[in-house]
Amino acid sequence: MAITVVGSVAYDSIETPAGRRERCLGGAATYFSLSASFFTDVRVIAVGEDFGPEQDAVFHARNIDTRGIEHTAGKSFFWEGSYLDSLNEAKTHHTELNVFAAFDPKLPDAYRDSEFLFLANIDPVLQRRVREQMPNVKLVAGDTMNYWIKDHKPALLEMLKGLDVLLINDTETRMLGQNPNLVLAARAVMAMGPRLLVVKHGEYGATLFHSASPKGAGAERTFKAPGFPLEEVVDPTGAGDSFAGGFFGYLASQPELTPGAFRRAMFYGSAMGSFACERFGTERLQQLTRAEIDERFNIFRELTHLD
Amino acid sequence: MAITVVGSVAYDSIETPAGRRERCLGGAATYFSLSASFFTDVRVIAVGEDFGPEQDAVFHARNIDTRGIEHTAGKSFFWEGSYLDSLNEAKTHHTELNVFAAFDPKLPDAYRDSEFLFLANIDPVLQRRVREQMPNVKLVAGDTMNYWIKDHKPALLEMLKGLDVLLINDTETRMLGQNPNLVLAARAVMAMGPRLLVVKHGEYGATLFHSASPKGAGAERTFKAPGFPLEEVVDPTGAGDSFAGGFFGYLASQPELTPGAFRRAMFYGSAMGSFACERFGTERLQQLTRAEIDERFNIFRELTHLD
Repeated sequence: MAITVVGSVAYDSIETPAGRRERCLGGAATYFSLSASFFTDVRVIAVGEDFGPEQDAVFHARNIDTRGIEHTAGKSFFWEGSYLDSLNEAKTHHTELNVFAAFDPKLPDAYRDSEFLFLANIDPVLQRRVREQMPNVKLVAGDTMNYWIKDHKPALLEMLKGLDVLLINDTETRMLGQNPNLVLAARAVMAMGPRLLVVKHGEYGATLFHSASPKGAGAERTFKAPGFPLEEVVDPTGAGDSFAGGFFGYLASQPELTPGAFRRAMFYGSAMGSFACERFGTERLQQLTRAEIDERFNIFRELTHLD
Repeated sequence: MAITVVGSVAYDSIETPAGRRERCLGGAATYFSLSASFFTDVRVIAVGEDFGPEQDAVFHARNIDTRGIEHTAGKSFFWEGSYLDSLNEAKTHHTELNVFAAFDPKLPDAYRDSEFLFLANIDPVLQRRVREQMPNVKLVAGDTMNYWIKDHKPALLEMLKGLDVLLINDTETRMLGQNPNLVLAARAVMAMGPRLLVVKHGEYGATLFHSASPKGAGAERTFKAPGFPLEEVVDPTGAGDSFAGGFFGYLASQPELTPGAFRRAMFYGSAMGSFACERFGTERLQQLTRAEIDERFNIFRELTHLD
């Protein structure tokens, strides 16, 4: 079933211990779409005037519907960052919102029958506006970040009420749930709306929490996907969005959303996040094959299964 | 089969967000012994003059052989630390080596038929001296820390040649292997002697690396045990030693050291580490039952298994 995703398509300038890239294709919606496209049909809502045929070709090579990318006057969102001190955390040098500042996401008619909706990390007011245009979707997932948690809490809390699944990292979970203990913070976050919470731990994988768990029995319902033991992390940019694309793309490809489907989705998410780190920007996702993904999924099983 | 362990029995004064304890029973050999005692016979080599009947009773309640605890004149090893800023890292306020400074570990005759040997974190010169007294053991595992890596490297490298399994944390692995990438650092460490390396990630569990893996195929042979999602970490002191006790104790209880036995040992290690954090000092390990351990082992399976 098709996924509609709203978020940023952007240019990134990135420096890591492995080298530097200027203005490569990036943005949360880009990583998410490329990653999810290995599992199901993906439709993007974004904005970017200076996206030319070269950028379009990247999406079209993966059969991603870009009719929802608005081409308004002005430069695309731009981010410059580095990972020279630590591959676990980006240092942001420069951000230009550009056309993103006045972005008013519009849902093309052709997207209306999407049964899955992903709200990538943008202003929660915009996330909510898209959510309201698609009241009947089967599953809604979303992302956010420390900036919205700190300075846009009321809008974020409104947005969270409309989510089935929230995907954020450890720090964001503790900040939003206002508790240094991750399990208790996760429970507090799920009380804000989402019945499922995926907490991403970077190189240590991710944890899926269920709000349905009775107090004290949380561990029995929790599921953990490990991180992949990569011999070289070239560029961690977009790893979290690629995780979300693999997780949500796999779910959208399944006939039924069983507990087993969510568990496998966690492994596919972790696999896609690990691929994203192997080259700069979206390079690895552009070259990837489904056979490679399934091979890595099987390695994940080996990494954690007893027998 | 019986394990002989050499290491510290000590008194710890600990402060965490959950409270404070003065001079409670601690030391690596204590945590290791209590933890391993749920799986097999354990024999301790240590030193401590001021260990009275109360401390002996803790060991004897778990049938741990303490004939190798030497009672020389002088105070026991003492450590004072806190976890007020972060539960992931202890801040050491005060250390008194006391009788430990002149410790010359002696192997009681009754310990000589032990088939498993654990060298807890002490001076690598002493670790090696004990290792040389037991040349025919079936499996030798050991621990070390940043202090020995930084300032006693030659002695440490000699000791490592005599190990089958080394258990250390992320930071120690990167420091010893001199590589910021954990997989490459692990490979460098295994080239120093141990054919197996367990890297402990604190709340994120632990990874078992095999030196037998051909280059580039490491991920297929690697195994990951998750951390347990604890709702309250009362005191992380001794969690790593308790992990080692569960891991090594389980192995010593097995008729054969198969790859499957090592995988299950990782889960038992992680289970024992999680129990240790639930109360101050060794309190939780003293009250534990084997049924509770097996119940937690099954939750670990649930946490990571797809089906």
